[in-house]
Amino acid sequence: MTQHVDAAYQARLDARSGKLSGPTANLAPGHVQANLAILPRALAADFLHFCQRNPKPCPLLAMSEPGDPALPELGRDIDIRTDLPRYRVWRDGELVAEPTDVRDVWRDDLVSFLIGCSFSFEEAMLQDGLPVRHIEQGRNVPMYRTNIQTHRAGVFGGSLVVSMRPLKAADAIRAVQVTSRFPAVHGAPVHLGDPAQIGIADIDTPDYGDAVEIREGEIPVFWACGVTPQSVVAAVRPEFCITHAPGHMLVTDLLNSRMAVL
Amino acid sequence: MTQHVDAAYQARLDARSGKLSGPTANLAPGHVQANLAILPRALAADFLHFCQRNPKPCPLLAMSEPGDPALPELGRDIDIRTDLPRYRVWRDGELVAEPTDVRDVWRDDLVSFLIGCSFSFEEAMLQDGLPVRHIEQGRNVPMYRTNIQTHRAGVFGGSLVVSMRPLKAADAIRAVQVTSRFPAVHGAPVHLGDPAQIGIADIDTPDYGDAVEIREGEIPVFWACGVTPQSVVAAVRPEFCITHAPGHMLVTDLLNSRMAVL
Repeated sequence: MTQHVDAAYQARLDARSGKLSGPTANLAPGHVQANLAILPRALAADFLHFCQRNPKPCPLLAMSEPGDPALPELGRDIDIRTDLPRYRVWRDGELVAEPTDVRDVWRDDLVSFLIGCSFSFEEAMLQDGLPVRHIEQGRNVPMYRTNIQTHRAGVFGGSLVVSMRPLKAADAIRAVQVTSRFPAVHGAPVHLGDPAQIGIADIDTPDYGDAVEIREGEIPVFWACGVTPQSVVAAVRPEFCITHAPGHMLVTDLLNSRMAVL
Repeated sequence: MTQHVDAAYQARLDARSGKLSGPTANLAPGHVQANLAILPRALAADFLHFCQRNPKPCPLLAMSEPGDPALPELGRDIDIRTDLPRYRVWRDGELVAEPTDVRDVWRDDLVSFLIGCSFSFEEAMLQDGLPVRHIEQGRNVPMYRTNIQTHRAGVFGGSLVVSMRPLKAADAIRAVQVTSRFPAVHGAPVHLGDPAQIGIADIDTPDYGDAVEIREGEIPVFWACGVTPQSVVAAVRPEFCITHAPGHMLVTDLLNSRMAVL
């Protein structure tokens, strides 16, 4: 008996088998991809509260049961220990490994948090005819630490990380409309225009990702970024934690179009 | 037998009796107010087409039958010849009178166009906690001719007029969301940031209305303005036409909240 395997499930199976170990951008178009943070149960309640208080950088798509590698809300047969192409393993805040599989370090007290990612709203922008410069230029999106503080929850807190896409003013207005429809994947921008107002000293030197060209007549538009939760987790230096490697996301069975509230 | 007279109808009755001859700002809160252009039938088809092609500056709420002073879609018992506090009468493009009643110049071939006005979306902004500077400062909204061309229809064409409200970036993003809900009253902004990009040489010298303060960290945000139709009509220099006097609008029975599409 055979079963239909669609592009999203295939991407997970390829990650599981080791056939896929690279970035997931452009895999399974139309499907939601997710950021991953895996924390010991002792930190999970605080982190869940942090996500609840900071939905723009941390739009939580799903949270697992402790020790359970399945995430039935996000797709069939998911094993979070194998189904991402590459992971980062952290001990006491130090990066100790970048494996393609975390079964050997799995623990019964680990809780997985899956957080919405900008790929979803970028797809909506492109479908609306809006330019996405880092995709045009074949680069990673530029990301910046800001002076905007997140709302603290327990041990978790710190500054908001934003991603930036340059747009003409009329396109920036349209991008607010288009991305407002997607609150589960960061939603509307948090700032536009002068980078210094949110504590960014040099727009050409992002803290993460790559710089992109800002053309004559364009303004930088800033969205809350899913790197924020990684940044706040890193600051806590938990005794153990696992995240996805940058750009190596969980490809889910959810459809981007179903993330739109309207 | 008595009939309930609400604030909107009362405003029209007061204009009709001559008791009200001043601006209508803040009268009958919650009710839609409308810009007026009255044109001879020979120009009406072109003007209707102009409105259809330029819905952002010319969101048409209602159009009368030729010669008929009633506008049943906009309110009960409306007589467009008497129910605005003050009019402007134009002959061959020259302003010839500013009466409080136009019954003496009425003609059987006149068609009335009622066009949405920014008061509606400003109310939504204020209810959302967003600042509206010209209201804070007790001034008229600053308006500017731009280098953005409207879409021509027959004899009507010319440049877009915009109104400007200064906002902090995060408030500008929120204002895009709030005003996008009101396409029938100008809707989302058409530009934000650098005034020179849309042909405005000096933000402190508006072409219509009053300058307002732009504070540290604020950007100018520009909406399509209902002065645009008056400006394009004036350019045509029709043999006869009537408009409202600036700020002296038709107060309708429609509710601002019912203008929201979502």
